[in-house]
Amino acid sequence: MFNWTLIDQIIINGLKEDINNIDITTDNLINDESISEAYMMVKEDGVIAGLSVAKRVFNIIDNKINVTFNVKDGDEVKKGTKIAYIKGKTKSILKGERLALNLLQRMSGIASISRKYKELVKDYPVRIVDTRKTTPGLRILEKYAVRIGGCHNHRYNLSDAVMIKDNHIKATGGIKEAISKIKDKIPHTIKVEVEVDSIEGLKEAIKAGADIVMLDNMGFKEMEKAVEIAASRVILEASGGITIDTLVDIAKTGVDVISIGALTHSVKSMDISLNIY
Amino acid sequence: MFNWTLIDQIIINGLKEDINNIDITTDNLINDESISEAYMMVKEDGVIAGLSVAKRVFNIIDNKINVTFNVKDGDEVKKGTKIAYIKGKTKSILKGERLALNLLQRMSGIASISRKYKELVKDYPVRIVDTRKTTPGLRILEKYAVRIGGCHNHRYNLSDAVMIKDNHIKATGGIKEAISKIKDKIPHTIKVEVEVDSIEGLKEAIKAGADIVMLDNMGFKEMEKAVEIAASRVILEASGGITIDTLVDIAKTGVDVISIGALTHSVKSMDISLNIY
Amino acid sequence: MFNWTLIDQIIINGLKEDINNIDITTDNLINDESISEAYMMVKEDGVIAGLSVAKRVFNIIDNKINVTFNVKDGDEVKKGTKIAYIKGKTKSILKGERLALNLLQRMSGIASISRKYKELVKDYPVRIVDTRKTTPGLRILEKYAVRIGGCHNHRYNLSDAVMIKDNHIKATGGIKEAISKIKDKIPHTIKVEVEVDSIEGLKEAIKAGADIVMLDNMGFKEMEKAVEIAASRVILEASGGITIDTLVDIAKTGVDVISIGALTHSVKSMDISLNIY
Amino acid sequence: MFNWTLIDQIIINGLKEDINNIDITTDNLINDESISEAYMMVKEDGVIAGLSVAKRVFNIIDNKINVTFNVKDGDEVKKGTKIAYIKGKTKSILKGERLALNLLQRMSGIASISRKYKELVKDYPVRIVDTRKTTPGLRILEKYAVRIGGCHNHRYNLSDAVMIKDNHIKATGGIKEAISKIKDKIPHTIKVEVEVDSIEGLKEAIKAGADIVMLDNMGFKEMEKAVEIAASRVILEASGGITIDTLVDIAKTGVDVISIGALTHSVKSMDISLNIY
Amino acid sequence: MFNWTLIDQIIINGLKEDINNIDITTDNLINDESISEAYMMVKEDGVIAGLSVAKRVFNIIDNKINVTFNVKDGDEVKKGTKIAYIKGKTKSILKGERLALNLLQRMSGIASISRKYKELVKDYPVRIVDTRKTTPGLRILEKYAVRIGGCHNHRYNLSDAVMIKDNHIKATGGIKEAISKIKDKIPHTIKVEVEVDSIEGLKEAIKAGADIVMLDNMGFKEMEKAVEIAASRVILEASGGITIDTLVDIAKTGVDVISIGALTHSVKSMDISLNIY
Amino acid sequence: MFNWTLIDQIIINGLKEDINNIDITTDNLINDESISEAYMMVKEDGVIAGLSVAKRVFNIIDNKINVTFNVKDGDEVKKGTKIAYIKGKTKSILKGERLALNLLQRMSGIASISRKYKELVKDYPVRIVDTRKTTPGLRILEKYAVRIGGCHNHRYNLSDAVMIKDNHIKATGGIKEAISKIKDKIPHTIKVEVEVDSIEGLKEAIKAGADIVMLDNMGFKEMEKAVEIAASRVILEASGGITIDTLVDIAKTGVDVISIGALTHSVKSMDISLNIY
Repeated sequence: MFNWTLIDQIIINGLKEDINNIDITTDNLINDESISEAYMMVKEDGVIAGLSVAKRVFNIIDNKINVTFNVKDGDEVKKGTKIAYIKGKTKSILKGERLALNLLQRMSGIASISRKYKELVKDYPVRIVDTRKTTPGLRILEKYAVRIGGCHNHRYNLSDAVMIKDNHIKATGGIKEAISKIKDKIPHTIKVEVEVDSIEGLKEAIKAGADIVMLDNMGFKEMEKAVEIAASRVILEASGGITIDTLVDIAKTGVDVISIGALTHSVKSMDISLNIY
Repeated sequence: MFNWTLIDQIIINGLKEDINNIDITTDNLINDESISEAYMMVKEDGVIAGLSVAKRVFNIIDNKINVTFNVKDGDEVKKGTKIAYIKGKTKSILKGERLALNLLQRMSGIASISRKYKELVKDYPVRIVDTRKTTPGLRILEKYAVRIGGCHNHRYNLSDAVMIKDNHIKATGGIKEAISKIKDKIPHTIKVEVEVDSIEGLKEAIKAGADIVMLDNMGFKEMEKAVEIAASRVILEASGGITIDTLVDIAKTGVDVISIGALTHSVKSMDISLNIY
Repeated sequence: MFNWTLIDQIIINGLKEDINNIDITTDNLINDESISEAYMMVKEDGVIAGLSVAKRVFNIIDNKINVTFNVKDGDEVKKGTKIAYIKGKTKSILKGERLALNLLQRMSGIASISRKYKELVKDYPVRIVDTRKTTPGLRILEKYAVRIGGCHNHRYNLSDAVMIKDNHIKATGGIKEAISKIKDKIPHTIKVEVEVDSIEGLKEAIKAGADIVMLDNMGFKEMEKAVEIAASRVILEASGGITIDTLVDIAKTGVDVISIGALTHSVKSMDISLNIY
Repeated sequence: MFNWTLIDQIIINGLKEDINNIDITTDNLINDESISEAYMMVKEDGVIAGLSVAKRVFNIIDNKINVTFNVKDGDEVKKGTKIAYIKGKTKSILKGERLALNLLQRMSGIASISRKYKELVKDYPVRIVDTRKTTPGLRILEKYAVRIGGCHNHRYNLSDAVMIKDNHIKATGGIKEAISKIKDKIPHTIKVEVEVDSIEGLKEAIKAGADIVMLDNMGFKEMEKAVEIAASRVILEASGGITIDTLVDIAKTGVDVISIGALTHSVKSMDISLNIY
Repeated sequence: MFNWTLIDQIIINGLKEDINNIDITTDNLINDESISEAYMMVKEDGVIAGLSVAKRVFNIIDNKINVTFNVKDGDEVKKGTKIAYIKGKTKSILKGERLALNLLQRMSGIASISRKYKELVKDYPVRIVDTRKTTPGLRILEKYAVRIGGCHNHRYNLSDAVMIKDNHIKATGGIKEAISKIKDKIPHTIKVEVEVDSIEGLKEAIKAGADIVMLDNMGFKEMEKAVEIAASRVILEASGGITIDTLVDIAKTGVDVISIGALTHSVKSMDISLNIY
Repeated sequence: MFNWTLIDQIIINGLKEDINNIDITTDNLINDESISEAYMMVKEDGVIAGLSVAKRVFNIIDNKINVTFNVKDGDEVKKGTKIAYIKGKTKSILKGERLALNLLQRMSGIASISRKYKELVKDYPVRIVDTRKTTPGLRILEKYAVRIGGCHNHRYNLSDAVMIKDNHIKATGGIKEAISKIKDKIPHTIKVEVEVDSIEGLKEAIKAGADIVMLDNMGFKEMEKAVEIAASRVILEASGGITIDTLVDIAKTGVDVISIGALTHSVKSMDISLNIY
């Protein structure tokens, strides 16, 4: 589900940041032999994501800590639900608490908002996708949380899909020239997406062989027109300034994909607490 | 203002994440010789934070890129303001754009919300402070943004201040015992904060020599009582479930510090765009 | 053309490996003030790749070394050609020599063999592509060299394209099931390739919506049949045990892509020397 | 046999390169519970090297994977031999397959060619040694494979033996001066090798106290003369442009060591496959 | 007691430094199956510190090595005492020996000298504290050893306490201005220390609200005066050129803290040997 | 003189350790524009080592800081000598001060003690050499300082010379067997040292072809005997419990090398201060 070597690096960096050399309170007050049991409880409704990551935090600190779950990633949970039980050295639990929660809360926040967007358009054959507006260093976790929430990912990084924007078009002389030039160079495994802001642009992109066309800040009518013209020859992606208020109307236009930066760039962490019995 | 060796690592990791091996679009379509001028524009009102970090992103990619600013960190900017000018290789600008914006938008989002909280209590002798509920890997930037917004930082990590919580008290037999035990061990440069949930606890903490007492989820009346009792002998910190609605009333109780996780854990990134002329 | 932060890491690791703490000969015998001029000469015909990487090696050791080139990546060079001039501290030149050459020789070896394969099929509308059989740690450089040689890249890693193989098909119950299941989950920017070993498999894959079909170890006749059936609805890739002897015959079948691990896994480094005048 | 902390770093870097964030095919199609058994089979005759490294790849991904071997490093294996059995999570096997094979195939390729060179001169009291023309980042593995093949290593890096070349001699005023100067500075544990291109040079080097003399591109007759003159007072190393065709004739001259860059810089990987039952 | 992720990095770096690619003696002469038992013996009286770190060295090399102790950190041991028993692969024991001892010897040396200083002033209510004059890269271990010896730590780094020195005072216009300016900015959890060289300075610092005042190179009389004036309103720290000869006299002045760089910057490692039975 | 990529890593780690996120005093009190001039002054007689490393510390923080020297590494300096001038941003100077001094003081301490040992035996044809008892992480700097002091280095790490000790001899059946076995395996560029504790052992080692023989804890008479027997056929190294009191007497025995762990494991840092004008 992940390349765990990347996750481990995030966690080790996170522990260096949060602990530095010592947990000066815990290391001075808690006996090394002290064992505790604790639970995590959600304090608001939402969708859980990141349980295995939270568990990994504790096990990198102390591989003898036992962490078990009552729910699984993707489950909708209600305020007050105990979602995890932790047993092990009190010191280890206290040292991992903050990082484990910070990751779990953010991921669950993303999954929850993603689920909400997803539900709004569930009656339409459209995908909600994320963007590259993720938190630097945490993209692997945030894109996972989007999927857990029921939405889909857009490209992961600048190397795994072509996205021809305005500046690329200007530099090459036109949509047709840009598509033609790049198709000649890229792997046959890579798709080409082109950003257009007019029906003319769409037509040119389809003709030139684009796989995906992004309709940048188009109105509803124009999008409907685009859907009609595309006639399933390309994937149509609506993008730009889309809010929860306009979402359904865009879905109704028949576009295939709606990309929303807010899935990851402006997220309210889910409130989750860890309590020792 | 920072230890830049930490910032550089964040940026290099961010570039690996966002570019991986190649910007397949830009590297195939833009000539290496192409030079562009670009600007960054804010698309909503707010407080800017992170300009030097955004600049560093471009200069790690290409030390010949020239970045200049019209504003400085902490300035309040209006929608539509051009805040930065960038001149250099088109390829370098396009490769750095996303990471520079992701960092600047998040930091400015934090500065903006912090400013808002700060303004609300500006007539009271109280500090709004952040918590350790920051984004793993970005604490150095987020705590900076809080300060830029006009709020203050709480402790940076588990090693630079003592925070005695419920579990620590239980483990040592009481507030007095915990404070006494830890003061004997820690550097004379480190302060001791104790979390209490009652006036009794407060009294005990003061008597035992705490420097700071956190009033956990207390009501307004109880806080007022606490302020009276403390009589400036300790710093009083209100914490727990504080929202924008209760903030001013808490400030009115006379507490010295109010800590708010939402300054960093649930932030709306400021909308900023980069455009090539 | 690269994400240079990755290249820098390769070079720094390479210098640690090749120098460790000191160049015990050079550091003890050459004065720090000594300046030299040197050139690189190719000692066999071939295609050059990696000049900027070789230059970076010297500049990471000593940013005052001046390196200029007579040729550019992709040029065919004849035995005896001087391709680069280097001027700077003698100590720095001697310390960087081996790593710079090791990288340049390998990359040029790959570019040369790639050019050779490419030339063989230049009259056919077919691509020769590499595989993931690259040298661990150097994929970014090796895939670049393949492109410089005139061939193309296959997917870069396991995350940027789907490749459904036998085991995946078994696990999901059939080609159709596998394609259907995965298309529902992956980004709309990702292509789906399926490996088949029969015409039946090809038909099923096309029907299920594969973007690319890999014909695994098929005979010429079967491949011709596949081309006929596919009728340009999918990209056809021939793969498995292809040698320089069978290459042209495969190209003649009309397949779109031929993948050859030997472009990177069994390469003769180009013989290049560095000489101080 | 290795410093495993270095090997682990090679593997972790290799996994980041080959997987990046996700194995998009396997992680989406294979159940987490699915367990498989697999074997590795060699598809051409050769000498195996790197089994423990291949095993480590799987165990870094998943420490519950069980890997056992039918052969051991250094064994000559025939086409069709099953050399390893792997049992564990299907997902983990599929994720490690490529990196494990890439390392094992390259190391076995080096061991195989080394064995071949070794066998050719087995009747002469001469060593075949490698050079520093190794793959950047993999020297530890490649030099190990050379030894497994039956050849020997030359110096590992620039710090563990002195090698005085032409430029060092020029800079110090002569062979005698260079040797004298450096012997005064280096640890008593370090040997001094000098490169000469004439019998005169050899004589001077012996007189000055060299431990090893490299005969650079000498003819057979001159080498025989060198052997006679050296009379075992120094180790004689033949180097430069040595091919499989001239190897035995050089061995016959009586030199002690023959260094051959092709052991590592131009290696055909051994063909090995991994199959799930 | 530590953030072990930092310790692990120290050990892995230490192994790379001490072993590089191979233990050429051990890996060539000792069978992989050979098991040994060994013990560590102290060869001079002193205080032990670092046992768990030494153990970790062996377990990072080989997680099957068994290490047990007869003593614990902080114990005073006599010459000839066997302090640890080690059982496991002979190769692993020999590879870890030097690094384990280098760490343990240095840490025990620091603990021993710290204990000595501590004993000298044990009848006075004064703390002996270390400084930032630690070995780059090993501060976490050295500050721990100081505590084990019975002394205390000063601030860990430049971020966890304010220390206003001469240059800071000059830059802000005076002690009062400096303290006032900084208290307005720093977290409420951070203490402010000011360095003064006169009674006037002390008075000003107290008035301005300093938490700690460092008396820089003051004479005994002046320090006594300072103690009288401070009257417990601030913590008084004596610093500068303090030797074992002046220590007790300084303690008698009544200062609260005496800081001594020599606890870490000029330490004689404790002589400890590892012997295989 | 160094592989600077290793030094840079030491410095960057050192800055993370000493600054962590912020120099809370300097970053809050000193203006970013403030420029200062400073000097370094030695406060006791000794030998300077590490000037270029100290300079590098400042230049990694701020590449605009100008650092010049009045002396050079290896110079004997008297108390009160100003050795370096630094000009640049006040903030950068203050941030680099501690790390620069910590490194320079330790290296100069090592050079000073090394010079002292060296002077004592300057009339004898003997080398004083260091050991592997260096500070983990700083070996590259400490071994350099030993050379600057006028002594020599022993092997750098476990891979660059063979050292056959008691356990290796036991494991192989005897000195002869151990030497014979290992000479067959190691590079021809590597020397073999054997540790013996008797004249018999010495004779056996010479006969078996050892390059160096370490006389472990032998008496003066026995060492004289050893010198007589060896008759320059091997390098003789005295080792074990050698103090400043026995040094000259050992030198008189005629051994070639005396190894002394105290050059690096128990060093008094030279007292050096940095002052802003």
